[in-house]
Amino acid sequence: MAFQKLPGTQDILPGAVERWQYVEQKARDICQRYNFREIRTPIFESTELFQRGVGETTDIVEKEMYTFTDRGNRSLTLRPEGTAGVVRSYVENKLYGEPDVSKLYYIGPMFRYERPQAGRYRQLHQFGVEALGSVDPALDAEVIALGYTFYTEVGLKGVRVEVNSVGTPAVRAAFRERLLAFLEPKRELLCKDCQSRMDRNPLRVLDCKVDQEHFEDAPSILDSLDEECQNHFDKVKTYLSDMGIPYEINHRLVRGLDYYTHTAFEYKAEGIGAIDTIGGGGRYNGLVSEIGGPDQPGVGLGLGLERTILLLQHQATELPASNQVDVYLVALGEAAEREVTKLVYQLRQRGIRAERDYLGRKMKAQMKAADRLQARYTAILGDDELVRGEISLKDMAKGEQRVVAISGLADEISG
Amino acid sequence: MAFQKLPGTQDILPGAVERWQYVEQKARDICQRYNFREIRTPIFESTELFQRGVGETTDIVEKEMYTFTDRGNRSLTLRPEGTAGVVRSYVENKLYGEPDVSKLYYIGPMFRYERPQAGRYRQLHQFGVEALGSVDPALDAEVIALGYTFYTEVGLKGVRVEVNSVGTPAVRAAFRERLLAFLEPKRELLCKDCQSRMDRNPLRVLDCKVDQEHFEDAPSILDSLDEECQNHFDKVKTYLSDMGIPYEINHRLVRGLDYYTHTAFEYKAEGIGAIDTIGGGGRYNGLVSEIGGPDQPGVGLGLGLERTILLLQHQATELPASNQVDVYLVALGEAAEREVTKLVYQLRQRGIRAERDYLGRKMKAQMKAADRLQARYTAILGDDELVRGEISLKDMAKGEQRVVAISGLADEISG
Repeated sequence: MAFQKLPGTQDILPGAVERWQYVEQKARDICQRYNFREIRTPIFESTELFQRGVGETTDIVEKEMYTFTDRGNRSLTLRPEGTAGVVRSYVENKLYGEPDVSKLYYIGPMFRYERPQAGRYRQLHQFGVEALGSVDPALDAEVIALGYTFYTEVGLKGVRVEVNSVGTPAVRAAFRERLLAFLEPKRELLCKDCQSRMDRNPLRVLDCKVDQEHFEDAPSILDSLDEECQNHFDKVKTYLSDMGIPYEINHRLVRGLDYYTHTAFEYKAEGIGAIDTIGGGGRYNGLVSEIGGPDQPGVGLGLGLERTILLLQHQATELPASNQVDVYLVALGEAAEREVTKLVYQLRQRGIRAERDYLGRKMKAQMKAADRLQARYTAILGDDELVRGEISLKDMAKGEQRVVAISGLADEISG
Repeated sequence: MAFQKLPGTQDILPGAVERWQYVEQKARDICQRYNFREIRTPIFESTELFQRGVGETTDIVEKEMYTFTDRGNRSLTLRPEGTAGVVRSYVENKLYGEPDVSKLYYIGPMFRYERPQAGRYRQLHQFGVEALGSVDPALDAEVIALGYTFYTEVGLKGVRVEVNSVGTPAVRAAFRERLLAFLEPKRELLCKDCQSRMDRNPLRVLDCKVDQEHFEDAPSILDSLDEECQNHFDKVKTYLSDMGIPYEINHRLVRGLDYYTHTAFEYKAEGIGAIDTIGGGGRYNGLVSEIGGPDQPGVGLGLGLERTILLLQHQATELPASNQVDVYLVALGEAAEREVTKLVYQLRQRGIRAERDYLGRKMKAQMKAADRLQARYTAILGDDELVRGEISLKDMAKGEQRVVAISGLADEISG
């Protein structure tokens, strides 16, 4: 019988993986410039961490987690997102005791039991940053700028930033009353989802994609901000303007849970059809204490790599061109075969990307293989040349061929 | 309540993660030189794949797999090793239909429910390569050389290579009879594990760590090789000698399962105490068809990154030294604070690693932070300097300080 990968999972093969490597390397480079350092937390954690850190009433925790019991009878969950594990690690390893702000990033797989469909995976991959330990609004602006820089530098076009302030829990509680007073008379006009959200999390109602016509005169949370919230938000906006990051205010943009505070933001791009959210984040001054740590503030972002890569392909963004190998060695004869095996090894030891044939193919088929790899050079060794200690070296771009000493081959190619 | 990571899992934090990044980057660099390309297969697969591909009677499958049932009632397993998924992907994606040999590598997490102890993790990390589609013994030598190069270039000292031939299944069946004839009279003298292995997989008996005294006169599989096996093994040894890879023959070295053929090899290093196996691999010409694919040969290696990193630490191997940031910016005053926020952003856009304070600290504390980051420069901006468009730049190694134009700061630092 033949085996297949499971629904919602994918194989990333050579030819496609290079774009992943490119995008991830960009994320790492940018994090290094921003002085965010990598943290790696486990693929699975105790289920309760995510119930607490992601939120019991979220779709993720209610419906989408890969939860199971291990041989020691513990309830484990494959991480559905990256923040809870990072914050757990920050607390458990007492990083809050260090003198500087913890500026951390992660790249890796996440798991959600979603209905498989185009662009939705059960194993997905996210890049995220978390900055823990400071309330400085400059850090909110920095995190927003970092994400914007990432999208821009990987080559995505038309990315927009939307920002909002969701205030403090007290501000939000007051706004909630104002909003409900506005929504109640319209309850029967709204969709089922909105009716249910009105009872559980009314701020999210304004996010609804189908009911926007009813919300034109809805109150704005920005009119409810107290002085502290207003000051924080003003500074974030000033910094973003100073940096030249193009952004818009969207007073309906919310983060779902009680521990979010002040800044909320999203990145949008023209998708395959509609404008799509491609990433986002915000400040979460209540999260560290929510999961058992000291009262330390935080701000972060998370974004999906699948969606980024899909959009790059959709926009037909080209990767920088490159040869796959520097030199392809062709052996003609048994003694040459042995010499080429050694020579390929020595070239690689010198840092040269070298390849050869392993299928006993004729010279013409080997030259075709060299073409497929876009080899910069081919080097052809026959038994008679071997006796003279020489090898034919062909520059594939120029079409020039000349005979060089075997002992000088690495220098010819590197030089 | 405070949450903890689960037993057998680890947090890799800044300060430790840099060594992981270094080792993984080395693996990627070497694979590029050897023209192995990355493949990424899912973290979980159907349980049956591992039962078939790893082997029903192995410790891994019998005792150590993280197996669970998903919401769609499928039996999933978190991958305990890398080869089965890669071979499944090679078959499912019909890579065998491509004209060249598939030379693939992977780096990533694996999962085994082992008793947690020093150096043993339930989430562990492996680097491996698989070359599929060729019987050329030069490829066996290349894979062995690749692993040896990896260990050497990450800085591990005293690595030895042991090689053997385990022949074909027919050769092994004949040797099995010879070996059992030798072992039967000694059955009562051997440990319980060996007695059990005699019935299930007698070749592995010779691997036993406690019973070596009884095996001095044991027959060698190398005396049972047929002509094809002998030729293949001779070529592998010739190529390794030509390359200058130091290796020893160990005729007791075996791979457990029936689909292994010809070459088997292991890397050993002086561990914390005894000589330890740190990685290994071999040829598996029967595996692709075993898991439902066409009759295609393969050869590969796998090695544990935890053990590599532990040994590097034990040998006190230093990472190449590096500054963590290029410049640390200090703002004195409110206007300077705003300017520094913009300036840090602009420097990072220019590719410079720039950092600043987010905790409203006094100048002295900020200078200490710059020291902790081993900043190459600190740049100090006061409100009065800002008016003149200038900033003080201090070279931390030389101790020299001078005033430069703010507009020229990036050039001063890059130049």
